[in-house]
Amino acid sequence: MTYCVAMCLDEGLVFLSDTRTNAGVDHISTFRKMNTYIAPGERVLVLLTSGNLAVSQAVLHYLQARIDDPEDRGLLGAATMVEAVRMVGDALRAVHAQDGQALADFGVEFAASFIFGGQIGQQPPRLFQVYAAGNFIEASPDTPYFQIGEAKYGKPIIDRVIRRNTSLQDAAKCALISMDSTIRSNLSVGLPLDILLYPSGKLLPSHHARMDTTDPYYACLRQQWSERLNKAFEDMPAPQW
Amino acid sequence: MTYCVAMCLDEGLVFLSDTRTNAGVDHISTFRKMNTYIAPGERVLVLLTSGNLAVSQAVLHYLQARIDDPEDRGLLGAATMVEAVRMVGDALRAVHAQDGQALADFGVEFAASFIFGGQIGQQPPRLFQVYAAGNFIEASPDTPYFQIGEAKYGKPIIDRVIRRNTSLQDAAKCALISMDSTIRSNLSVGLPLDILLYPSGKLLPSHHARMDTTDPYYACLRQQWSERLNKAFEDMPAPQW
Repeated sequence: MTYCVAMCLDEGLVFLSDTRTNAGVDHISTFRKMNTYIAPGERVLVLLTSGNLAVSQAVLHYLQARIDDPEDRGLLGAATMVEAVRMVGDALRAVHAQDGQALADFGVEFAASFIFGGQIGQQPPRLFQVYAAGNFIEASPDTPYFQIGEAKYGKPIIDRVIRRNTSLQDAAKCALISMDSTIRSNLSVGLPLDILLYPSGKLLPSHHARMDTTDPYYACLRQQWSERLNKAFEDMPAPQW
Repeated sequence: MTYCVAMCLDEGLVFLSDTRTNAGVDHISTFRKMNTYIAPGERVLVLLTSGNLAVSQAVLHYLQARIDDPEDRGLLGAATMVEAVRMVGDALRAVHAQDGQALADFGVEFAASFIFGGQIGQQPPRLFQVYAAGNFIEASPDTPYFQIGEAKYGKPIIDRVIRRNTSLQDAAKCALISMDSTIRSNLSVGLPLDILLYPSGKLLPSHHARMDTTDPYYACLRQQWSERLNKAFEDMPAPQW
């Protein structure tokens, strides 16, 4: 399984992904699900992937082949975020055309759900969710975030905290708490994590790191959130019946 | 959809269920999912149902027919909780034998997931989860609760709070917070709620009520939990990157 979340806020974009993949509970591995396409000062694009790992990797190969073609340049040549997200959708469709029937012959679902966001030049930062069919939707002020994979455990805290004007730091904190809740409830989501903060207009991430159990901020967050949540619970009035 | 949760604690049992049923988002109704079989001073049995409503109701009719048969007495005659939960499983199997093929012919899943618990005489209170196939598992000190239906949104708070020695009042508070998180995230789970608290050895519920939006405790809980959660979030250290 997978859990990835991204938020599109007034201050910029936040991306967080786990790294656990599994083919059954007895076949668990670590793979990066956060992929970045960065030309400093010119564009920052981030792609989070979930679903069938072979499908995700085939899409990445396809996107990279276009980037490596000097006539095309793919994601690094796209003039707008919409053009870029269409390239991601086109890559999914190309992989489906190539592998879809073979997967179906083996009864394997063509499962893929991506989050794609970033900024090109001084156009506004944008955030999209891309479906297996290659179509996509965009985040809005009403719903400024997307989740893919094992989304439900970590959704309540996001719904309660995240607004379009939430700061990047608070959004990162919220995303990490949401991830912690998911990891506690679902074995198939796990550390290490990849996190990327992108402040609007900078055309370079302000923070892009891998966090594992030794990361002091994650450890502190994990412990303190549990304590504070229990304290908040204890402080609530008990029913009088 | 549905969300029901029940907990088996040192002090007794807590049951909570919503009442929303839906056949598509444009066909939403209110049905009781908490069913009680009580002989005061002798036994208290509670059955929470989720899945296909026609299947659940057919099971209830089957159980009631046995109760109404003076030669049998069904759940009201069972000598032990295991005998009682087997009656629930047998009822599911009888309904499957009667309706399973007809449902399959229409491509409708025989969906049913039940929670069944209670106490008979001075035997210990017990709590079970019953699957569509009529088989069942029992709660244990390690995992003292069961959820059925839309379980994921409300699971993190239960995992963080509920232990076997949690008080009945605190467990009720936790169950209601878990329900509130679910209702906020999933339209297909909704008020009113049915709640039942059963203190071990009493052979009568200490509290059994329907709660709707006008219930002062639920309204207070809903508002205060949101405030306290946001306060706990604000008080957490922000990342220094």
